[in-house]
Amino acid sequence: MNVDAAYAELVGLLKRGHLLGSVGELLGWDEQVNLPPDSADQRAEQQAVQAEVQHAAASDPRIGECLDALRDVSLSEDQLAVVRQARRDYERATKLPADFVREKAAQGSRGYHAWAKAREESDFAGYAPVLEKNLELAKREAAYLGWAGREYDYMIDRHDPGMAAVAIERLFSELRNELVPLVREISVATLTRKKTGGALRGFPPERQRTFLREVTEKLGFDYRRGRIDVSLHPFCSGTGADVRMTTRFKEDEPLDSLFSAIHETGHGLYEQGLPRAHYGTALGMSAGMGAHESQSRLWENQVGRSRGFWRYFEPRFRALFPAQTADVSSDELYFAINAVKPTLIRVDADEVTYNLHIILRFDLERKLFAGKISVRDLPAAWRTLSKDLIGLEPANDREGVLQDVHWSDGSFGYFPSYCLGNMMAAQIWYRALAERPALEEDFARGDFLWLLGWLRKEVHAAGRRWELLELVRRVTGEELSPRHLVRYLRERYAALYLG
Amino acid sequence: MNVDAAYAELVGLLKRGHLLGSVGELLGWDEQVNLPPDSADQRAEQQAVQAEVQHAAASDPRIGECLDALRDVSLSEDQLAVVRQARRDYERATKLPADFVREKAAQGSRGYHAWAKAREESDFAGYAPVLEKNLELAKREAAYLGWAGREYDYMIDRHDPGMAAVAIERLFSELRNELVPLVREISVATLTRKKTGGALRGFPPERQRTFLREVTEKLGFDYRRGRIDVSLHPFCSGTGADVRMTTRFKEDEPLDSLFSAIHETGHGLYEQGLPRAHYGTALGMSAGMGAHESQSRLWENQVGRSRGFWRYFEPRFRALFPAQTADVSSDELYFAINAVKPTLIRVDADEVTYNLHIILRFDLERKLFAGKISVRDLPAAWRTLSKDLIGLEPANDREGVLQDVHWSDGSFGYFPSYCLGNMMAAQIWYRALAERPALEEDFARGDFLWLLGWLRKEVHAAGRRWELLELVRRVTGEELSPRHLVRYLRERYAALYLG
Repeated sequence: MNVDAAYAELVGLLKRGHLLGSVGELLGWDEQVNLPPDSADQRAEQQAVQAEVQHAAASDPRIGECLDALRDVSLSEDQLAVVRQARRDYERATKLPADFVREKAAQGSRGYHAWAKAREESDFAGYAPVLEKNLELAKREAAYLGWAGREYDYMIDRHDPGMAAVAIERLFSELRNELVPLVREISVATLTRKKTGGALRGFPPERQRTFLREVTEKLGFDYRRGRIDVSLHPFCSGTGADVRMTTRFKEDEPLDSLFSAIHETGHGLYEQGLPRAHYGTALGMSAGMGAHESQSRLWENQVGRSRGFWRYFEPRFRALFPAQTADVSSDELYFAINAVKPTLIRVDADEVTYNLHIILRFDLERKLFAGKISVRDLPAAWRTLSKDLIGLEPANDREGVLQDVHWSDGSFGYFPSYCLGNMMAAQIWYRALAERPALEEDFARGDFLWLLGWLRKEVHAAGRRWELLELVRRVTGEELSPRHLVRYLRERYAALYLG
Repeated sequence: MNVDAAYAELVGLLKRGHLLGSVGELLGWDEQVNLPPDSADQRAEQQAVQAEVQHAAASDPRIGECLDALRDVSLSEDQLAVVRQARRDYERATKLPADFVREKAAQGSRGYHAWAKAREESDFAGYAPVLEKNLELAKREAAYLGWAGREYDYMIDRHDPGMAAVAIERLFSELRNELVPLVREISVATLTRKKTGGALRGFPPERQRTFLREVTEKLGFDYRRGRIDVSLHPFCSGTGADVRMTTRFKEDEPLDSLFSAIHETGHGLYEQGLPRAHYGTALGMSAGMGAHESQSRLWENQVGRSRGFWRYFEPRFRALFPAQTADVSSDELYFAINAVKPTLIRVDADEVTYNLHIILRFDLERKLFAGKISVRDLPAAWRTLSKDLIGLEPANDREGVLQDVHWSDGSFGYFPSYCLGNMMAAQIWYRALAERPALEEDFARGDFLWLLGWLRKEVHAAGRRWELLELVRRVTGEELSPRHLVRYLRERYAALYLG
C-alpha cells in the first residue's frame, strides 16, 4: 500500500469510528438530560448495540493493515502522533472481545440508574453488587490488555496516558503536606474572625439561567455549536462541532449552578478549540482528562473566582437579582464565592479542600484494586478517611461513598485527573500571567479574549501531539509540580482569610 | 440449521437492526429539537455513518441464511408474518448498495436544513436542486429494487405495503366528488350565516403546555415512556419504550398546539400499544403509515373535536385561561374547534378541506414521477391546483410548495397515507360506535379508556400481521371506502353549519 494512501485511509477510518462514538455519546447525554423514567431498559440495549458497532469500527482490520503499511516509513511529526495514538487505540480495541464490550456498555447504563436510585435512598448495600461487577469488569479489561497485576495503573493510563499510581502518589503526598496545614490555618481564622459570606437565597432558576448564559457566552463559548441543559450531575460531552454542557439549578445556591456552568464551559472551550479538521485523530483530540480538567478548573477558579471577573460581572448579577443581593455587600459576595469551608460533598467543595476529596478517592481506588479493601468495606473506609483528611464524617452513605456518579459506570482512575488538572491549571496560569501581567485588568473590562486566544494557541491547537507531562513542559518550561497550585491557593486565600 | 434456532436467531438479528435504527431516529429527533444552528454538518455525517451501520445490520448475510432455513418449513401464522416482513426488508436492504444508503442519508439531513432555509426565505429556486436530487435518488432506489417504470408505486408501497397509485386514485376521486360540494355548501352557509368561531388571543405557551399535557395524559399517553417537546414541524418518533412527540406554540393559536399534540398522541398511543415483546419484528411494528395516521386522526378529530370531549375539558380550559376565554361562549369555542375555512396551509387545514390538500399533493407527485411535470414546474402547478381544489392561490411559495417538510428528505408517496388514514379512522370510528353507542358520553365523563382498550385489542395488538386493506377488513368487516369519512364529515359539519 502506498504511504499517502494508507495514511489517508487510516484517517478516514479513525473519523468513522469517532463519529459512531459521538453518536453513543449523544445517547449518553440524552439519557441524563431527556430520558423518560421507564425507558432505561431500551436505552441500555441501544447503548450496547451502539458500543458494539463502534468497537467493530475501531477494530476494523483495515486499520491494522494501514498501520502495518505505515510502519518504518518516513512520516512527519504530526503524522507520527496520529499513528502512535491510532496504534494504541487499535490495540486496545482489538484485544477486547466484542462480547465484553457489549456487556460493559449495558452494565454502564444499568449502573447509572442503580446509582441514582441508591443515592436517592442512601442504600449502599443495594448498590454494592453493581460496584463489585464494575470492579470485576475493570480487572478483566486490564487483563485483556496486558496490564494484569497493574490494573489500577491501566485505569489511570486510560484517562491520562503515561501517568501511573506511583507518580501520582508522589505529587499528591507533596500536595497533601501543604494543604492540610493551610486548611487548618483558614479554619482557625474563620472561627476567630467570623469572615463568612453573605446568605444567598431565593434565586429563580430562569434568572440564574439568564446570568450563566451571559457569563459563559462572554467567556467565549460558542452557542452556535453547543448548548447547556439540566441534569442531575453537571457534565460536558460532545465535540467541537456540537458541545453539550449541563448544569443544575437550586434556588438557594446560585453559585453552584454558575460555577458548574463555568467549569463545563472550560471543557467546552477546549473542545471548541481543538482543530476540527483533524476530528478523530490525535491532532484533533484533547491531551487527556488531566489536561481537560486543567481547562475547566482554570476558567472556574483562576478566572471565575478572581476579583477582576467579579468587578465586571457583579453589577449585572445585582441588576438581575436586586432583592436577593440587597443585603449582601461586595466583600460578602466575594467571600461567598471564595468560601473555604470543609464539606462532605466533593462537588460542593471549595477549591482548597477539593484536592483532599480527590486524594481520598485515589487512596480508596488504589486499595480497592490492590485488594487491601473490598467493595463492602468502602463505606467505613470512606468515613475514616473523610475524618482524617477533611475533618468531617458522613452521617450516611448518600453524603459519603454514594455521592459520585463515576464508579457507577466503572470510571475508576478518573478522579486523580481532577487534581492533576488543578495542578496544571495553576502552573499554566502563572505562565499566562508572566506573558500578560495585566490579565485581571482584562477581566475587569469584560475582556477574556486574550486568555482564550493564548490557551487556543498553547494548549487547544496542540490536540494530543503530547501527553499531559510533555504538554506541561512545553507550555510552562517546567515539570508538572504541585507547588504552583499551593502558591496560588496561598496567594488567593491567605489574602482573604489570613490577611 | 434447526428451525427453532433459525427463527430465534432471525428475531435477534431483526431486533439488533431495529435498535440501530432507533438510534438513528433519536439523532433525527435531536436534530429537530435540540441541534445547535451550526452543528448541522456534523449531524449529517453522524446520520450517514449510522445509516451505514444500520444498513449493514439489515443486510447481514446471517439474516439471509436464517430466511433460507425457514423456507418451506412448518411455521405458525405469527411466525409466517414475521418471516414475510423480514424477507421483504432483507431484500430491500440487500439490493441497495451501501454507498447509495450513505448518500441518501447525508442528502436527507442536508435537505432538511435547505428546506428550513428556503421556507424561511420563500426561495424555491435555491431549494429546487435539492428536490431534483431527491427525485433522482428516489428513482434510483426504485430501480435498485426492481420497480423501474413503477417508481411512484414503489414510493407508496414503502409507506403502505400493498397500496398502489391506481387504487388510491379510485378512492380519492370518489372522495373528491363528495367533498368539493360539501365544502361549497359550508362556505355558502358561512358567508350567509356568519357562523364563525370566537377569537382566541394571548395564550401563554407555558399554560398551553400545562393544558395539553393534562389532555394527552388523560387520553392515555404514558409519560413514563415518552415526552413532548417543541419543534418547527410537529412529529412523533421513537418506539413504545420511548416515544418522542413534538408540538409548537403560538400565543394566538392555542388550538394549533393542542390539536398537533393530540394528533401526535394518537401516533404515540399506537406505538405504546404495539407488543413490546415483539420489538423489531412484524408482530411488534405498526401496520404502515396509513394505519398510523388512522390512529392520530381518530384521536385528533373523531375524539378531540367531539362535543363529549369538550364537555369534559372546557371547564379546565376556561380555568387555565379565564381572561382569554371570558368573551368566548361555549358555542363559539366549539365553532373555533370545528371551523371549516379553506386555507393555503395543510397543517392549518380543517378536517374537511384537509383531504383536498392531500389530493393536490398526490396529483403532483404522480405527475412528477411520470415526468409530466419537472421540479421547476412545481410552484406554478401547485398554484393552479390549489385554486382548483381549495379555491385559494398562494401569494408565495412559502404558503405553497415550500410549506411541507416531507419532500426535503425524499419522503415522496407519504402524503396519500394521511388521507387513507382519515378514511380508515372514520370507518373504524363507526365500528367502535356500533359496539359502544355511548362513546361520547364516556368522553363527557373524562373516560377514554374503553376506546383506548378497544383500539389496543383491535388495532394495536395486531402489529403488522396484516396490511392496511386486510386490517380494515378484519376490524370493520368491510372494504376500505371513503363513504364513512364522507358520512362522518356530513354528520358533524352539516349539524354545525347547515342545520
